[in-house]
Amino acid sequence: MLTAEQVASARERAHSYLSRAGIVLTPAEVAAIEVADFGLSDLATTGLELVVYVNTERVCAKELVLFPRQACPEHRHPSVGGEPGKEETFRCRWGTVYLYVEGEPERTPAARVPSGREQTYTVWHQIVLHPGEQHTIPPDTLHWFQAGDEGAVVSEFSTRSRDEVDIFTDPQIRRATIVS
Amino acid sequence: MLTAEQVASARERAHSYLSRAGIVLTPAEVAAIEVADFGLSDLATTGLELVVYVNTERVCAKELVLFPRQACPEHRHPSVGGEPGKEETFRCRWGTVYLYVEGEPERTPAARVPSGREQTYTVWHQIVLHPGEQHTIPPDTLHWFQAGDEGAVVSEFSTRSRDEVDIFTDPQIRRATIVS
Repeated sequence: MLTAEQVASARERAHSYLSRAGIVLTPAEVAAIEVADFGLSDLATTGLELVVYVNTERVCAKELVLFPRQACPEHRHPSVGGEPGKEETFRCRWGTVYLYVEGEPERTPAARVPSGREQTYTVWHQIVLHPGEQHTIPPDTLHWFQAGDEGAVVSEFSTRSRDEVDIFTDPQIRRATIVS
Repeated sequence: MLTAEQVASARERAHSYLSRAGIVLTPAEVAAIEVADFGLSDLATTGLELVVYVNTERVCAKELVLFPRQACPEHRHPSVGGEPGKEETFRCRWGTVYLYVEGEPERTPAARVPSGREQTYTVWHQIVLHPGEQHTIPPDTLHWFQAGDEGAVVSEFSTRSRDEVDIFTDPQIRRATIVS
């Protein structure tokens, strides 16, 4: 749960990160920046700020903002009604992103898991994305990511986004943010 | 047909427009910028510069660069093998784009059709895109666009891109550029 003040403040901060990345939004898009705390009420460590440009039956494009060391927790996008799950490409526009996927684990990972939630981060194959670098994640593949010390702005290009069917490793997570 | 020098020069110029728009590319992406003259050998009036970030079976994302008053000629994306044609969203990142689609024609359009090719531009419903503004084009819909006097940088979010099946109104157009 977040207060309306927390949401407004995060929205303003996310807008400043997007501006630093050279990304221009309309006033309506700024007002609609989504602030997600994943139900953990600890936005500084677990959270994501999103601008959804388009989300049709076939295509979705978003900008994602991560504040310094903010993490988007581990999840996957399952198939729905016989259609393969969401396929997504993350392209770093500004800052640094540490992305973790299934595969050979990194021995000395650059990310730091939010304290107390260590058991809910299980994939440790590390991909570091700097501006201009990108990685494509196939459907139904566990992944999570965290910004470096500066924060990050990431473009996401994907098939249709159906946040409500995402499966998170952490059973306490709720994708829809409740604003008090 | 373009000379290798023309391609190299257009690539360098396109890179400078992308940098102005705040878009960072890897050296490999810069070297792979596609310069399209649509077979008309008149790049200054009819042409497009493209960076393809990703193009899978399901999703495609690109940056498009248009030099001042450069036009991408009228075309549509038909269905292929029972699958609906390409659906695409154009989002202006820098400069101004005049986009034309089917619908009520604009009486005083801002774009100027390349001289001698007036008959090959048939849709005149005008949409003007400034930075942060976007428009989604359904499959199989005629459209064309031209940059304003400054040029433009446009992000394209779409389903799979199959340039080879695009249908252009101008029968002289060939989508694949020949480099001499």
